[in-house]
Amino acid sequence: MIPLAEASIAALRQAIGPGPVKLHEPRFTGNESRYVQDCIASTFVSSVGQYVDRFEADLAACTGARHAVAVVNGTAALHVALLLAEVQPDDEVIVPALTFVATANAVRYCGATPHFADSATNTLGLDPQALRDWLRDCATPQGRHWINRHTELPLRALVPMHTFGHPCDLDGLLALAEDYNLPLVEDAAESLGSFSQGRHTGTFGRLGVRSFNGNKIITTGGGGAILTDDPDLARRAKHMTTTAKLPHPWAYVHDQTGFNYRLPNLNAALGCAQLEQLPDFLASKRRLYTRYQAAFAGLEQVRLMGEPPGCVSNYWLQTLILAEDSADQRDAILAATNEGGLMTRPAWTLMHRLEPYRDCPRAPLPVAESLVRRLINLPSSAGLA
Amino acid sequence: MIPLAEASIAALRQAIGPGPVKLHEPRFTGNESRYVQDCIASTFVSSVGQYVDRFEADLAACTGARHAVAVVNGTAALHVALLLAEVQPDDEVIVPALTFVATANAVRYCGATPHFADSATNTLGLDPQALRDWLRDCATPQGRHWINRHTELPLRALVPMHTFGHPCDLDGLLALAEDYNLPLVEDAAESLGSFSQGRHTGTFGRLGVRSFNGNKIITTGGGGAILTDDPDLARRAKHMTTTAKLPHPWAYVHDQTGFNYRLPNLNAALGCAQLEQLPDFLASKRRLYTRYQAAFAGLEQVRLMGEPPGCVSNYWLQTLILAEDSADQRDAILAATNEGGLMTRPAWTLMHRLEPYRDCPRAPLPVAESLVRRLINLPSSAGLA
Repeated sequence: MIPLAEASIAALRQAIGPGPVKLHEPRFTGNESRYVQDCIASTFVSSVGQYVDRFEADLAACTGARHAVAVVNGTAALHVALLLAEVQPDDEVIVPALTFVATANAVRYCGATPHFADSATNTLGLDPQALRDWLRDCATPQGRHWINRHTELPLRALVPMHTFGHPCDLDGLLALAEDYNLPLVEDAAESLGSFSQGRHTGTFGRLGVRSFNGNKIITTGGGGAILTDDPDLARRAKHMTTTAKLPHPWAYVHDQTGFNYRLPNLNAALGCAQLEQLPDFLASKRRLYTRYQAAFAGLEQVRLMGEPPGCVSNYWLQTLILAEDSADQRDAILAATNEGGLMTRPAWTLMHRLEPYRDCPRAPLPVAESLVRRLINLPSSAGLA
Repeated sequence: MIPLAEASIAALRQAIGPGPVKLHEPRFTGNESRYVQDCIASTFVSSVGQYVDRFEADLAACTGARHAVAVVNGTAALHVALLLAEVQPDDEVIVPALTFVATANAVRYCGATPHFADSATNTLGLDPQALRDWLRDCATPQGRHWINRHTELPLRALVPMHTFGHPCDLDGLLALAEDYNLPLVEDAAESLGSFSQGRHTGTFGRLGVRSFNGNKIITTGGGGAILTDDPDLARRAKHMTTTAKLPHPWAYVHDQTGFNYRLPNLNAALGCAQLEQLPDFLASKRRLYTRYQAAFAGLEQVRLMGEPPGCVSNYWLQTLILAEDSADQRDAILAATNEGGLMTRPAWTLMHRLEPYRDCPRAPLPVAESLVRRLINLPSSAGLA
């Protein structure tokens, strides 16, 4: 085994024991069973019910958003948020190249095209300065909007993503969004519990979205939410995600092509119990970061991703960053750790390297290209520390 | 109160007691709590898990389909089934005007246009003879396909729906589908447990879809499934509904714009328990039909919808059909029953009367127009009889 792989395994075992251990397991040590039983007993397991209402209220209270609309998953949340940001067919939407595929997919569901931008080393999220430099060359004003001068398509929205839970540079991105008249839609799928300058991620943009998939910091099985401070957007989000049915004692009238994106009450019941434990999960993940820091301190070729300045991160997925001259050892480390029962993962394939998105417009991506060869996610479950 | 409304309330109370009673409530008297607890204890509540595998196997065994792919709801199932039937943007898809809005919505999600066709009085589903007459005028061959000569768009698929659980005329529709080279995709959302000539609905077409929404004969909270006998279609359905990720020990490679349409294991656990009780639910619903028949026998102005010849219906929603000359009393009956705590519902608004679909192509719809003014769904929960 190459020395860095061997040393990484030793550091992991020092921090979390011998394993085997998954990348991220949910933890159900609170009221999960009680609430789910209660939900079944009530017979309201489906698209309406008290747990859906409570989960939405609890999410709003937890994040400081005025409104939260629970939906079936994070992808659905982003799809509807983009529609509410008025993304239309043949628009372009600026998203990071370094993201989970759902970010790009949601743009496509709107009939629009993702336009990939580079990341910053200090946040792993969109780099506002690099994007500003790119748009200075690429974008030209047309009426109230800016168009991509190469494709002649309108730039319609800006979608940063908070990578592995670390807040991106929201100040810089908000300024850029204003200069280019782009609504900011935050893909905050991974960052429940992460703050930038004291404010919860997901609440900076016109809309923000969350995921509660099984691998997230809290889970509803599958689930997501749309956050917004705008009561009209919240009302429309609820309407569009519930088949766009107009209220009536019995008539079935739908005033647009809506979606069946409601979160079932059964899943919301799980979510209510999970949300109660979020403070404990956050504390555990922060302790785990400290342990990993100590364990990996002696290895010069790697560093741990820490929260950016001015931010509090949820440390959803702990992340090792290899030095440039050790990037060629990434696959050996991945192989050795996974074979040793310590589940690790690389970052996602960059979006423009995927078959469905290889022809999409993109900025120069030197930082994302470098990061993607050097990132390794470590076992991160709450309860490991 | 008008006499027919008064008589209807009396008949309902004779059949099911004084109420209050919902239109359709789920019933969780089996292993629901046990399986859901077990699922939570396993920590596999999300997109993979033994209950998903088991639910798919149980569904295949129950329906006789070779393959079942569990998904997040019936709308998602139909969306993916239409894509697998190669429905493309600017195609037309023939669907009934008398259906729930999800049928038309799923066509739109593909970028295609629903083309509405008439229903038959004896099945409440698509009338193959009326549709054949319409296509003789409207369709003209072009290469391997037929196009709508008015819109010049290709007719790409035929999507019958089994209304309230009653099988439509599958023989007639299969013959028509063959003559016009249209893949048949069965919207069998409502008809789990319904058979035509001994074969389960949902297994006649190239693909069939099911819904397990809270109001269906069995529920997973929210959920659905795609049925097919074709192993390649089943494999592609699973792939497309799980973000089109290619199998790999760690790399994230997605080879098309996929969907996040997986059914969570938590919901599948509920579904496994519900499916065990399907025979009991079916027996109860058949008894309820007999009770309603007896209770309404004295009312000349109404009849109960019974299973079409050669079919076994699941009697998902019991349905009263008013005589033509009593149609003007429908709203009075709806108002009186709902005010009296006996929840009833009219049929859906016909699709071409909805704002998003008013400009879509359509056949003459005299039967659907007549039926929609005369149908009333009665309280139908399993356990009422």
